[in-house]
Amino acid sequence: MFNRTMYELGSHRSVIRELFEFGKKRAAEVGADKVYDFSLGNPNVPAPDGVKAAAEKLLSLTDNTLLHGYTSAQGDATVRKAVADNINARFGAGVSPDFIYMTCGAAASLTVTLNALREEGDEFILLAPYFPEYAVFVKAAGGVPVVVPFDPETFAPDLDALEKAIGPRTKGIIVNSPNNPSGTVYTRETLTRIAELLSQANARYDRHIVLIADEPYRELVYGDAEAPYLMNVYPDTVVCYSWSKSLSLPGERIGYIALSPRLCDKEGVYAAVCGAGRALGYVCAPAMFQYVAAACVDERPDIEAYRRNRDLIYSALTEMGYDCVRPDGAFYLFVRSLEADANAFSDRAKNYGLLIVPGDSFGAPGYVRISYCVSHDMIERSLPAFRALIDSYKK
Amino acid sequence: MFNRTMYELGSHRSVIRELFEFGKKRAAEVGADKVYDFSLGNPNVPAPDGVKAAAEKLLSLTDNTLLHGYTSAQGDATVRKAVADNINARFGAGVSPDFIYMTCGAAASLTVTLNALREEGDEFILLAPYFPEYAVFVKAAGGVPVVVPFDPETFAPDLDALEKAIGPRTKGIIVNSPNNPSGTVYTRETLTRIAELLSQANARYDRHIVLIADEPYRELVYGDAEAPYLMNVYPDTVVCYSWSKSLSLPGERIGYIALSPRLCDKEGVYAAVCGAGRALGYVCAPAMFQYVAAACVDERPDIEAYRRNRDLIYSALTEMGYDCVRPDGAFYLFVRSLEADANAFSDRAKNYGLLIVPGDSFGAPGYVRISYCVSHDMIERSLPAFRALIDSYKK
Repeated sequence: MFNRTMYELGSHRSVIRELFEFGKKRAAEVGADKVYDFSLGNPNVPAPDGVKAAAEKLLSLTDNTLLHGYTSAQGDATVRKAVADNINARFGAGVSPDFIYMTCGAAASLTVTLNALREEGDEFILLAPYFPEYAVFVKAAGGVPVVVPFDPETFAPDLDALEKAIGPRTKGIIVNSPNNPSGTVYTRETLTRIAELLSQANARYDRHIVLIADEPYRELVYGDAEAPYLMNVYPDTVVCYSWSKSLSLPGERIGYIALSPRLCDKEGVYAAVCGAGRALGYVCAPAMFQYVAAACVDERPDIEAYRRNRDLIYSALTEMGYDCVRPDGAFYLFVRSLEADANAFSDRAKNYGLLIVPGDSFGAPGYVRISYCVSHDMIERSLPAFRALIDSYKK
Repeated sequence: MFNRTMYELGSHRSVIRELFEFGKKRAAEVGADKVYDFSLGNPNVPAPDGVKAAAEKLLSLTDNTLLHGYTSAQGDATVRKAVADNINARFGAGVSPDFIYMTCGAAASLTVTLNALREEGDEFILLAPYFPEYAVFVKAAGGVPVVVPFDPETFAPDLDALEKAIGPRTKGIIVNSPNNPSGTVYTRETLTRIAELLSQANARYDRHIVLIADEPYRELVYGDAEAPYLMNVYPDTVVCYSWSKSLSLPGERIGYIALSPRLCDKEGVYAAVCGAGRALGYVCAPAMFQYVAAACVDERPDIEAYRRNRDLIYSALTEMGYDCVRPDGAFYLFVRSLEADANAFSDRAKNYGLLIVPGDSFGAPGYVRISYCVSHDMIERSLPAFRALIDSYKK
């Protein structure tokens, strides 16, 4: 009656969503103030004021058949120009509006790119720890995910393992920095080394492995950390961007795909991107929020609020004895589980009202992800629970 | 370097888009007043005032992290309830909000449904004349399109041919009434007969063929014509809806999938729908326009404007000698080509500034589609060109 693979994907929600639903139920039972939900990556910092101003201005001044009408499949031309200008002003990447494709958010950027690239037998490398949906998207596009482990001291990829994983069937690699779930920002040295390994493989196998830079957290970098622009590090790069976090618009599904001017056969890849968007049913990205994003391309939410959250939870947890690497970006803390099985640890944490996501589906068993895109107040209130949790392992 | 199928889909645009792009170029050369573009189905009637009011109210009164935040993957619960209530009040269909899935528009409704249903070797029946993207969506989902011809007197499906086309591999049939490209509204008699043929096949092959009702034009019905609600005609029905035309919001990509309460194993199909949405990268439908659509679920644009256009162009063209069936819905007129090859006819029409789409890709060679969702004034100004075109065949 239906497709079994799709049924499995739909009936077994992601572990993140399961925890989130559990939290809502639990809050109804014991009170919302006794549930500390660190499960979802849903920004709690509001969109910058410019978003509301831009939306109101568009609604009152733009002819409504234009505002809400179809744009070109690849996105409105003025919007694509605004995006390219912004990329070029910030990173000097030399991107052309003709190689920008507006999308319904980061997930769509990835599924469209993967479907555009995937040929029979192609492998795509995922660097653990990685966002679990990557594996779903690669398989749904007909590709084979190949997972590379990480260095537990830094959460950077294990470069020796990466070298071994790249083979004649490697079509692409997804690089996500700042990283979900670890909050790590890969250093320029790490990225340069990844680029070298890819270039060597390209020469060896006479192909062009595509670096897919998944960048929803690009703007969320704290302190002095630097997040190099990947087009400037490796020529065959496709950037998948979203305004979900950078403008706090996750529900509006608005993002883009940008092809590097140095990407091999970029005309062909761009046509395949347009074709994949068409085949998956993405007629165009939501029109009004294309215009809003273009108007707000330099706006940011209150990123300092996330930094303050990071400082609070990182300091408090390490002081209590939790083991974690200080994250420089995104809004996640990746903590070593207090027992070998992170699922058992996550279950025990529930008894203290703490909803934290086991790392197994991120390709990192033995860890849990804590999303700190929550109120500062909730983090403060949750600290006794974190203390009780670690104490329970000392008895 | 890329997927060849996607490349072909992206580099050969649909013939509709090609004509539209030609029109823009031609207008720059000879003046916009000398190009009569009847190519696109882009509503020219503005969204009802309620849309702007609802959007402004949401922007000013709703907490912006809620307004722009993720909704559940299946759509916000209050929105799904509003949709189900509306369907039930109008059609008594007994739909549950738990079997509504909000989508990024009609195309997404279809690709998600097709991917959810498709198993190895499955065929999907398309009733000519049909929207060309149906074939793209079926193939991209891994299915096999099977085209059934039509009765040229009524543009209703040839029911004998349909009976022969239904076989043991038939998984579904797409029914689109009011129809793009013909404007035909299938009669209750026709729909009942289709339902009977499906039910007989279900008994014969011990399966449940799914009727996929693609309903973006449901609200655009003129005069006394009736468009029966398909859930009430056949039990195994999935409705794919969009507000693109019914609220004039085509660029905002907002619609839904509704499963009939009588659909076989609807829990399984719904899970597969959720899984397909996930696999294709549809995280949730655009949040703010979910709320706008729910607030405006009973609003309509000025449908009389389309009726006036229909009356003008239908009367004028038949009076001149063009051969066409009077459309009762949507905003298309499907006219018999004045020569065997509708592509040659469409090309000749260009010389008179008339952009009309050859019917070959709709599964109906020998016809052209005229979209009359344009200004009444442009239709009036175009009439001498239509006359000159038909006269050119009399010389």
